[in-house]
Amino acid sequence: MSATLLRPASDTSADIPASDPLGVAAALAERLAASAVQRDRDGGHAAQEREWIRASGLLTLSIPTEFGGQGAPWPVVYEAIRILARADSALAHVFGFHHLQLAGIRLYGSAQQQRHLLTSTVEQGLFWGNALNPLDQRTTALRGADGFTLDGVKSFSSGSVGSDWLTVSAWDAAAGEALIGVVPTAQAGVRVQADWDAFGQKQTDSGNVHFDQVHLPAQYVLQAPGQVPTAQATLRSQVAQLIMANLYLGIASGAFDAAREYTREQSRPWFASGVDAAADDPLIQHRYGQLWLLLRPAQVLADHAAHELERAFNKGALLTARERGEVAVAVAEAKALSHRAGIEISSQMFELTGARATSAKFGYDRFWRNVRVHTLHDPIDYKLRDLGRYVLDGSVPEPTAYS
Amino acid sequence: MSATLLRPASDTSADIPASDPLGVAAALAERLAASAVQRDRDGGHAAQEREWIRASGLLTLSIPTEFGGQGAPWPVVYEAIRILARADSALAHVFGFHHLQLAGIRLYGSAQQQRHLLTSTVEQGLFWGNALNPLDQRTTALRGADGFTLDGVKSFSSGSVGSDWLTVSAWDAAAGEALIGVVPTAQAGVRVQADWDAFGQKQTDSGNVHFDQVHLPAQYVLQAPGQVPTAQATLRSQVAQLIMANLYLGIASGAFDAAREYTREQSRPWFASGVDAAADDPLIQHRYGQLWLLLRPAQVLADHAAHELERAFNKGALLTARERGEVAVAVAEAKALSHRAGIEISSQMFELTGARATSAKFGYDRFWRNVRVHTLHDPIDYKLRDLGRYVLDGSVPEPTAYS
Amino acid sequence: MSATLLRPASDTSADIPASDPLGVAAALAERLAASAVQRDRDGGHAAQEREWIRASGLLTLSIPTEFGGQGAPWPVVYEAIRILARADSALAHVFGFHHLQLAGIRLYGSAQQQRHLLTSTVEQGLFWGNALNPLDQRTTALRGADGFTLDGVKSFSSGSVGSDWLTVSAWDAAAGEALIGVVPTAQAGVRVQADWDAFGQKQTDSGNVHFDQVHLPAQYVLQAPGQVPTAQATLRSQVAQLIMANLYLGIASGAFDAAREYTREQSRPWFASGVDAAADDPLIQHRYGQLWLLLRPAQVLADHAAHELERAFNKGALLTARERGEVAVAVAEAKALSHRAGIEISSQMFELTGARATSAKFGYDRFWRNVRVHTLHDPIDYKLRDLGRYVLDGSVPEPTAYS
Amino acid sequence: MSATLLRPASDTSADIPASDPLGVAAALAERLAASAVQRDRDGGHAAQEREWIRASGLLTLSIPTEFGGQGAPWPVVYEAIRILARADSALAHVFGFHHLQLAGIRLYGSAQQQRHLLTSTVEQGLFWGNALNPLDQRTTALRGADGFTLDGVKSFSSGSVGSDWLTVSAWDAAAGEALIGVVPTAQAGVRVQADWDAFGQKQTDSGNVHFDQVHLPAQYVLQAPGQVPTAQATLRSQVAQLIMANLYLGIASGAFDAAREYTREQSRPWFASGVDAAADDPLIQHRYGQLWLLLRPAQVLADHAAHELERAFNKGALLTARERGEVAVAVAEAKALSHRAGIEISSQMFELTGARATSAKFGYDRFWRNVRVHTLHDPIDYKLRDLGRYVLDGSVPEPTAYS
Repeated sequence: MSATLLRPASDTSADIPASDPLGVAAALAERLAASAVQRDRDGGHAAQEREWIRASGLLTLSIPTEFGGQGAPWPVVYEAIRILARADSALAHVFGFHHLQLAGIRLYGSAQQQRHLLTSTVEQGLFWGNALNPLDQRTTALRGADGFTLDGVKSFSSGSVGSDWLTVSAWDAAAGEALIGVVPTAQAGVRVQADWDAFGQKQTDSGNVHFDQVHLPAQYVLQAPGQVPTAQATLRSQVAQLIMANLYLGIASGAFDAAREYTREQSRPWFASGVDAAADDPLIQHRYGQLWLLLRPAQVLADHAAHELERAFNKGALLTARERGEVAVAVAEAKALSHRAGIEISSQMFELTGARATSAKFGYDRFWRNVRVHTLHDPIDYKLRDLGRYVLDGSVPEPTAYS
Repeated sequence: MSATLLRPASDTSADIPASDPLGVAAALAERLAASAVQRDRDGGHAAQEREWIRASGLLTLSIPTEFGGQGAPWPVVYEAIRILARADSALAHVFGFHHLQLAGIRLYGSAQQQRHLLTSTVEQGLFWGNALNPLDQRTTALRGADGFTLDGVKSFSSGSVGSDWLTVSAWDAAAGEALIGVVPTAQAGVRVQADWDAFGQKQTDSGNVHFDQVHLPAQYVLQAPGQVPTAQATLRSQVAQLIMANLYLGIASGAFDAAREYTREQSRPWFASGVDAAADDPLIQHRYGQLWLLLRPAQVLADHAAHELERAFNKGALLTARERGEVAVAVAEAKALSHRAGIEISSQMFELTGARATSAKFGYDRFWRNVRVHTLHDPIDYKLRDLGRYVLDGSVPEPTAYS
Repeated sequence: MSATLLRPASDTSADIPASDPLGVAAALAERLAASAVQRDRDGGHAAQEREWIRASGLLTLSIPTEFGGQGAPWPVVYEAIRILARADSALAHVFGFHHLQLAGIRLYGSAQQQRHLLTSTVEQGLFWGNALNPLDQRTTALRGADGFTLDGVKSFSSGSVGSDWLTVSAWDAAAGEALIGVVPTAQAGVRVQADWDAFGQKQTDSGNVHFDQVHLPAQYVLQAPGQVPTAQATLRSQVAQLIMANLYLGIASGAFDAAREYTREQSRPWFASGVDAAADDPLIQHRYGQLWLLLRPAQVLADHAAHELERAFNKGALLTARERGEVAVAVAEAKALSHRAGIEISSQMFELTGARATSAKFGYDRFWRNVRVHTLHDPIDYKLRDLGRYVLDGSVPEPTAYS
Repeated sequence: MSATLLRPASDTSADIPASDPLGVAAALAERLAASAVQRDRDGGHAAQEREWIRASGLLTLSIPTEFGGQGAPWPVVYEAIRILARADSALAHVFGFHHLQLAGIRLYGSAQQQRHLLTSTVEQGLFWGNALNPLDQRTTALRGADGFTLDGVKSFSSGSVGSDWLTVSAWDAAAGEALIGVVPTAQAGVRVQADWDAFGQKQTDSGNVHFDQVHLPAQYVLQAPGQVPTAQATLRSQVAQLIMANLYLGIASGAFDAAREYTREQSRPWFASGVDAAADDPLIQHRYGQLWLLLRPAQVLADHAAHELERAFNKGALLTARERGEVAVAVAEAKALSHRAGIEISSQMFELTGARATSAKFGYDRFWRNVRVHTLHDPIDYKLRDLGRYVLDGSVPEPTAYS
């Protein structure tokens, strides 16, 4: 593994108190919150803020201690994602997808690959991005003497802009199958084009990654073409789905808190309400109760799914397809509930604040825009169908990149 | 404590394997299920089935082992209620309210009262009923030399018909406060009038209890008039509220299972669906997914609330008002979600089965009728308002008979 | 046409003021309401009440004046159905399906058949029932010298018990197609078996009609096997679908009125509401507003669909498939909205009344039971799919027995 | 009336075919649509586009023919607003509020005032703006020799930026009542400050209007302080409320059409759907059916309310308070349904299009942002409460600036 391709080592992660990662996340969230409205407006690459994340040490959160990481279990990782998303769901996404790439290395990689890549990540403070979009087959892999040559483009690559390393999938036409590998973003032939222009989740550093005769050495191939993924390996999509659920939840929770604070401190009671404060209006209290019953179950089910995922992760190669499927069901429940909580709370919150809360200075519309864009990753109606099948005949979702 | 007022001891509870109360509950539920449709139609007092419950030994489930009971924690008691309610929510209610009276003795009673009443309950296989309706002040208590004389009537007394002992509240006009006491149902002057005629929960043995110069000795007064209830004592209404939540959940779950079985085994695919089996219809699968997302969170939150209640119960006199309030919030969440799950699933289940499932022979309408009647115990809109207040300013629900 | 097969002429319909059919319907509804709760409990055939309907003269409501009928346009017929359904949705169904059979004669029958059958209906006060269940092919038609011989059974035959004449469909195996004809219920070989046992709509006189070597003369064949139905003829299923919509609406409206009256006159304000009367509780007012927004649009759209149907009916043979399709869309909108209004209002009404309204003496659960059973005639999810297709690409529903 | 205060006459409105105002509106909408996404992004004053509206002649649409206007009934005016809102709800708002000011002149003004102001509006192509915010009492009126002197500020003044004339309310502290008058925007002492910065409805030209010693001559006082408004005069708030309903509807309809077009032409079928085109997916069709059942009833009820308003308007001084109240109920129904349709469709539309539709180039998020901001004008929960009161006891909403 050529260290020169890697980012110069920084010492930023050295002095973080690993004992309180959620405290670290909370402090980081507060720092991100200060500029979140402005950055949501501007879009683009949040170079400075990514350095703050790196400096927080949280990039090593999910890395096992044997490789120098903090060895946090998934529930803690997801809680950190949620805390960040409350303040800035775009950077929380970048952060979450970094850990998704690390999970991929643990799930697909050989012992040696894990050691090399994860240790390097810790030592050099690496930031990982995603170029593993399985529905996009425009990137091809041509087998050569030592490994493969990659060509083509990969869209919707979250966190690719500003990353140090990328996980990439590519289509091996000869084998009629895709491979999965890792590649330094700075490697010759790799070009990241920042073209993400959605109306939400603006700073997710999603882009098109172009590959022009990029050499992928065999040692960086995590899964060779045609290699049937194990039940363990297919957990990767569940890690990803649960990242999304927690992002939605973070947004929902951020919106809820913003509304509550506004209702209490700024809303005026409606002239026909007969009460002195908006927070005393029974119709407003009733609606808060309803929104809470969207948020609270989603949180509880997301926590539950995180524990199930942790257990499955720890089973490693012993994980059965059925057990993997049960995790997928728990994650689907959490994702569908979080989706709804996010969409409903971020839209209904305004019924509870009144017109003045729509001033651009608050930027409260970003909650809806962010969760609206992100919840389209894969259709909720098929999540509901999967759950319906499960309760009808006990069949678990088929392992795909989305389930 | 005069043993002659108590029911002759039976030996039915002696040989129950205390080690598997939920297995016992499941077996009992199966036995109740066989006649549930017919008994729902007929209404009236289920004398035989109450004896089955008694014989199952489950009447001692919540009684501490020091008094000879099974010492089951609340999560197990609630799970047993839910299991029974799946098959027969009326008898599950009677069963649950028996344990509510026992909880009242533990929460209000002196050490001596607890020992006497709970030990007797175990030894004699007593079945307790409720005559503690705090909104109904028509029963009065007149203080005399040794205790009080009760007169008047108490309506909505669940489980009173066929009970051995009753918990009763009565209004002491002199003190301007109510007392709480216990009374053998067979005592002179007590008359239980079975006049419950609702369209659901028919066999809950709810009746009007008439008191005609009934002597309540001091030793049977659990809470004297004017005695301010402790935070511990006010847990009783939370025990009651969570019984309801679990009854709703049991009904919801019973309806869900009935629908699922019917869809799989009897429903015909709609001619325009293009599928060979109703269970393969994506619109049906989708709707099952939606209903599942009503049921599943309610179950998880109800389990969570049961654990919170157990913790609070175990704190005993050390329980603070705030801690009690947090339990009330958890219970309110569970109750509101269970309410919705019950009402929606019991009504929507028919969209998933088709017209033939409305035949009286299946009795599937009893799910809706039962949950519809029972969910009116106290208004859900005020539960939502309580939750709204909690999330707005952190204030917990005021302890009342309903919150 | 053999008059001897027909019911002896009665003079009951002679002296009805045709000028105010809705007033007549309202008076009839009031009469039916008095015993509706009891008859809902008992089920069975409402012989006496059917005679009241006959005596009201409303059986001739939809018959053109040229045949001696009242010539009411469809909006009036549907309004009459709705008025009756408010009080008694089972008999309203029988009444509506009588007019459905008459519509079938007008849509399928020759000029001579129309004259004979409709005139006889007026003169002899005939009551028609349905044995035209197109999904049930167990009744066969064997072509003979003069007409056909019918054998087999037809289930779900609304209004067949106690009818004078029946419309029937039968499968001609030789032609591989079904025919539609009419048959006197009293004809030899016809046997009506009252086996309807659903938990709602109990007195719809639905039964199994058995045919044992029943002669169907050619003059009574409305549509021969293999005859392609015209756009006009296929309006019959829209007449039927809109009858259902108006039955649902009548039930919804009856439930709404019952709830409102109860809230105003009997409900007690919740102790925590701070108001003196339940009707002053803002949470109750708010929920009434929500239910009203289910009922009101359904009514308006149902009225609109009735006008569209009337226009289409009047176009007769000139009606195009497209125009027929637009009617089907309008009817589908009305039916789906009425379905929802009925289900939601009949279930939620109890949140607005409180527990005492569940007493069997009020019989308020019949609203939900009736609408729940009746809304399963055909799946609402496919109605929504049909509407979705229409708005997506403008395609109108394919003419079937259900769309 | 001093013509010099008025805008120089333009001849733009002279050659418009009054015979087809909706065709004119459709052509104007198409013109606005071309730049709507860009202008939504930029915000600010749409000077050019306002001139297009002026040039279309539609500013005279609601003005009676006796004053040279087109004399369109309210249903046509509202339809025009809806057509414009489909393309650009901000300018549709400006347009609608112009006609609201004209309605105010007709409802409050004397015969002479109507003649002068409306004739001038036609002849000079005047554009009216609003400075009549009754909850904002910061603008005061001091009675002088000839009329009043206005001082202070008025916020939330829709259409004030770029207007020719304003309707204004001001608080007469001496009388303890407000007056209503009209004032040329260019008059000395009037200053319009464009400070509207909401995240939606950006180009509504809402601003703060500052009055510094502004002379309001008696002839421009439409309603003197203390003058009790007639039932007729209070129709103004209903005109306003129904403008909003139609704006919401236009947005809902625009969003629906955008989604439909996208689903049909650009959406990819989900890989697990088994269909070749997204529009063939039954789950997508089903959801379109559901959204349609939000949109369609709102449209029908809004049309109904427009007809009721037209009837009431035409009754003039003969309008009773009860009749006015019935209009308010019809408008409340339409507004509540339109509110829901707008919010739900503009948010759910993305479930039907998929992730790529969130590209900023489409600007589809503007539908939600626009309707979200605008629906906060007054709380829907109080609209529902008003409707609940109406159906409970028949009481009509109290005439206020919002009901």
